Amino acid sequence: MKFLLIHVSKDSLGTALQAALKVISANSSSRVLSGILIQAQTQGLILTASNIRMTIEYKLPVKKDSMIVHKTGEIIVPARYFYEIIRKLDPGPIRLEIGETLILNIQSGNTQFRLCVLDVVEFPRIQYIDHPNTQRINMKNTLLKRIFKRVVFAVSSSETRPVLTGVSLQIDNQSIRVVATDGIRLAQHVVESVEDYGAIPLNVVIPGSTLEDLLKILNDDADSSTELEIGPKQIRFTSNGLRVQSALLEGTYPSIDNLIPQVSLSEVIVKTDLLLHVVERISILAGESVTLSVLPSHTLSLVSKTAEVGDVKEEIAMEQLDGEQFRVSFNGKYFRDILRVMDSENLRIRFAGKERPLVIQPVDASSSTLFLITPMRTQD
Amino acid sequence: MKFLLIHVSKDSLGTALQAALKVISANSSSRVLSGILIQAQTQGLILTASNIRMTIEYKLPVKKDSMIVHKTGEIIVPARYFYEIIRKLDPGPIRLEIGETLILNIQSGNTQFRLCVLDVVEFPRIQYIDHPNTQRINMKNTLLKRIFKRVVFAVSSSETRPVLTGVSLQIDNQSIRVVATDGIRLAQHVVESVEDYGAIPLNVVIPGSTLEDLLKILNDDADSSTELEIGPKQIRFTSNGLRVQSALLEGTYPSIDNLIPQVSLSEVIVKTDLLLHVVERISILAGESVTLSVLPSHTLSLVSKTAEVGDVKEEIAMEQLDGEQFRVSFNGKYFRDILRVMDSENLRIRFAGKERPLVIQPVDASSSTLFLITPMRTQD
Repeated sequence: MKFLLIHVSKDSLGTALQAALKVISANSSSRVLSGILIQAQTQGLILTASNIRMTIEYKLPVKKDSMIVHKTGEIIVPARYFYEIIRKLDPGPIRLEIGETLILNIQSGNTQFRLCVLDVVEFPRIQYIDHPNTQRINMKNTLLKRIFKRVVFAVSSSETRPVLTGVSLQIDNQSIRVVATDGIRLAQHVVESVEDYGAIPLNVVIPGSTLEDLLKILNDDADSSTELEIGPKQIRFTSNGLRVQSALLEGTYPSIDNLIPQVSLSEVIVKTDLLLHVVERISILAGESVTLSVLPSHTLSLVSKTAEVGDVKEEIAMEQLDGEQFRVSFNGKYFRDILRVMDSENLRIRFAGKERPLVIQPVDASSSTLFLITPMRTQD
Repeated sequence: MKFLLIHVSKDSLGTALQAALKVISANSSSRVLSGILIQAQTQGLILTASNIRMTIEYKLPVKKDSMIVHKTGEIIVPARYFYEIIRKLDPGPIRLEIGETLILNIQSGNTQFRLCVLDVVEFPRIQYIDHPNTQRINMKNTLLKRIFKRVVFAVSSSETRPVLTGVSLQIDNQSIRVVATDGIRLAQHVVESVEDYGAIPLNVVIPGSTLEDLLKILNDDADSSTELEIGPKQIRFTSNGLRVQSALLEGTYPSIDNLIPQVSLSEVIVKTDLLLHVVERISILAGESVTLSVLPSHTLSLVSKTAEVGDVKEEIAMEQLDGEQFRVSFNGKYFRDILRVMDSENLRIRFAGKERPLVIQPVDASSSTLFLITPMRTQD
């Protein structure tokens, strides 16, 4: 189905392409999946890009001056070339036309590109089949980005337990809870439901990579919101002209409640930026393990050793110490990742014994974020 | 020779390390050559880094507050780790100390790194042997950077004719001439000698990669200058505390005078930024060849075709045309490289026939820069 002819402004098309490109794998061997499906319909232009895991769709509705469809039609364009061409064109209207051959004419001012395109074959499209159990939730973009950003870094990168490569999302009448863990570290964030999200409690696992892409694409406008449509096997995010659909991960997400130590032997409060700065520095030596010791006189010591490279020792002042002195070793890079998403001025470290995970929390009454990091066994 | 003890400010050491790092190859398999030689002498600190091709030396003279040598000594530090550590330390004085073992203590505030270092073995050092035929030339950094920047991009990247991987530097009483070519494109820049550079005419070939590093390291201050010491086999650049020494390339640089067409069939003048913008755009399709045609009515057309991808056609207005219309094809990326170093508002393209190189020159009476690009043979 060819014979497409449209006029579109460089800016609108550029924005849409930028979002679509996010899901296209740079080293996809499929010519179809390295392409973007372009559909010119009477209502407007739809761009669709996909990889095995997720599909993204961006709609540019017909708009006087910036988006005019003269002839409907659809084709697949090579994504990188098409994006680079549009990006480098002078600002202003662009004319896209396809005739009887598989050549797309791209015209702007005195510039004329003719790009080889593909006929529309089996391109993965977003299916609008409404499953009876589909749930719909509306969320401010700012809230959605904030809750997922705090936990998504902690998903597992190993496929040995696929369910751990995702973020668990649980919603009921009282709260929204997101959890990610790879078995060594864990991140959990709970917010109270400000709206009634429907009668059925929801419990799904969203692939971490889908969320990472989504966080990059969704805009941060205070008044933008996203509709989440959650079926038994798929999740769909719709925000303005953008639609992202992804498979959900199958399998049961492990229960984490009994992992969180309820009683602490000691609690330390330190300034977040001070600790982050020090941890970034001691990570230079690339040593896996960092030993944190609470010393007398309100001092926290961090030590890291790497065989044949060297070692590093830092001391920082604590704001507060309740309980006994302790010493514990853990993965320094994991600890750094946690500190990087912490947005409170001070943080609390809770120690519940050598064999129990360390609990790290923002010192901020309104927040219910919690991070765990499992200690490494050491000789001493 | 160990037992070094110094105090140095973070800023001074950081600047010196940044320069030294430029010559260290990221994938050097030699532990010695991935290191930086640190020498604490009574006059100050000397950092030396080297690869097979060139050696760089940076001197930090003793200075109250920012550079104090308590104990002299020398060691080799692992370059990347040492640089990253210094970079991430808090601002202020740093204490470097080495005792009886090969461990360097790096102390700053409450931070203490202990870094494994190497004993000083056969580290390449800058040799201060004065050959009787060594020539000394003093040049403003601004001039030195300007002349080499215009031509160095055109050196050959192939080792089949090693002498072409360098820039030819010729100096006599009248002029300084630099030339680079890879056989397809050529760049030449000539400036009149404003100073008497000595009686012996000079004719050497400096490795292009040495010059590229040097252009990044040398500062742009209007009043900084560099001393060039040129012996039969080596060149040494000295500017403030920095010294760079490199082997010269052996072999005779080809004579280029008969390559430059003296008579033109036509001459075109166009705006540089307009042409560059268009050439950057048509380079997207990654096609090797660009066909440039002079059309009637003061229009320049550029066309590029890439099999199975597509083609592009651009038209831009000429400022002036003298002579007949012509059409010629050449490597688009080479043409783009030339336009990128062109700093005049307008440029002149001289056509001397299908078999002769195209001459590209800035339209600027004071400049004597010249670029050649050899046409590709085409069917028509």
